[in-house]
Amino acid sequence: MRVLGVDPGLTRCGLGIVEGSPGKPPALVAVGVIRTPADLDVSKRLVRIEAELEEWIDKHRPDAVAVERVFAQHNVRTVMGTAQASGVAMVVAARRGLPVALHTPSEVKAAVTGSGRAGKEQVSTMVMRILKLAERPTPADAADALALAICQVWRGGTTSRLQEAAGSRANLEALAQAQSRLQVARLRAAVAAQESKR
Amino acid sequence: MRVLGVDPGLTRCGLGIVEGSPGKPPALVAVGVIRTPADLDVSKRLVRIEAELEEWIDKHRPDAVAVERVFAQHNVRTVMGTAQASGVAMVVAARRGLPVALHTPSEVKAAVTGSGRAGKEQVSTMVMRILKLAERPTPADAADALALAICQVWRGGTTSRLQEAAGSRANLEALAQAQSRLQVARLRAAVAAQESKR
Repeated sequence: MRVLGVDPGLTRCGLGIVEGSPGKPPALVAVGVIRTPADLDVSKRLVRIEAELEEWIDKHRPDAVAVERVFAQHNVRTVMGTAQASGVAMVVAARRGLPVALHTPSEVKAAVTGSGRAGKEQVSTMVMRILKLAERPTPADAADALALAICQVWRGGTTSRLQEAAGSRANLEALAQAQSRLQVARLRAAVAAQESKR
Repeated sequence: MRVLGVDPGLTRCGLGIVEGSPGKPPALVAVGVIRTPADLDVSKRLVRIEAELEEWIDKHRPDAVAVERVFAQHNVRTVMGTAQASGVAMVVAARRGLPVALHTPSEVKAAVTGSGRAGKEQVSTMVMRILKLAERPTPADAADALALAICQVWRGGTTSRLQEAAGSRANLEALAQAQSRLQVARLRAAVAAQESKR
């Protein structure tokens, strides 16, 4: 399963593509950032973001797209541009029939680091370890996009496998949560074991 | 000059097309609303909005698009969906090369009623009078979209004519504001004269 993670923004829109399946460490496919100049009209900035997203999807053919869920309460000054960019990312994916998942920042942090309140550096450190990268992905938006994609590979994969087995939606959700926690714990143990071998 | 006004929203996205030139009462071309079901994924709702906007633009060929500027402070619960829909509207217009103008709700109210703090009913009453409609446009989102388009016909037309005459940007903006106020005052006087004849 190949997932494109999008950390939306007008000034910097982080993109990260990861391939993997639940329970195994995912691999990096591509990482980058779309930048648009602040002196350009918002509508033209959104068109550039749309065009680059189209290119990325054409080139890397992800099976699903994960977008960070934007909330009104934080960063009021920039949140409208962030929400507009997220809308464009969602529409680019959904009109091709790609499934779109939204994850909150704390869901992503919890999936990758084990804590929903982890800092930017903790997240990028864990992304480096999980994907076995020699360098820390920068800017933070690119690391966040990879974290989103990792979160979706683990959670999304879990959900689809469980959908075959489980009947009711309530059961499914409880199972998915438990399974996801278990996989994250297993993966963190595997990463820690690797680290200690060095 | 033909303008499509868009009052963005996921549940109801108001659309109104108006044709006219600065200083003359504009005429109604089309009015409507895009509705998307609340139980559908946001990404799929955005795709429906995009598809209907494309249809409207193909059918009515506006020269410009005016979108309501969304602010973070009001309606926190729905503002993210509104911002996402506005991003989609902007991208649909801008990728065709159509100029996109953003107007705040108070700019639109001031242009149409003379007061930036006018209520919904005052706005739709003035839209009815300006466009000589027999019925009040409903829902309010449709009336707001027409008000946006009227605002843009007056302000946008003014700006483009003045751009030929005026040199500096500061002069241009001051002139545009004064001209816009004058035109609105003239138009309101014309409407009032018509009303009193009935």
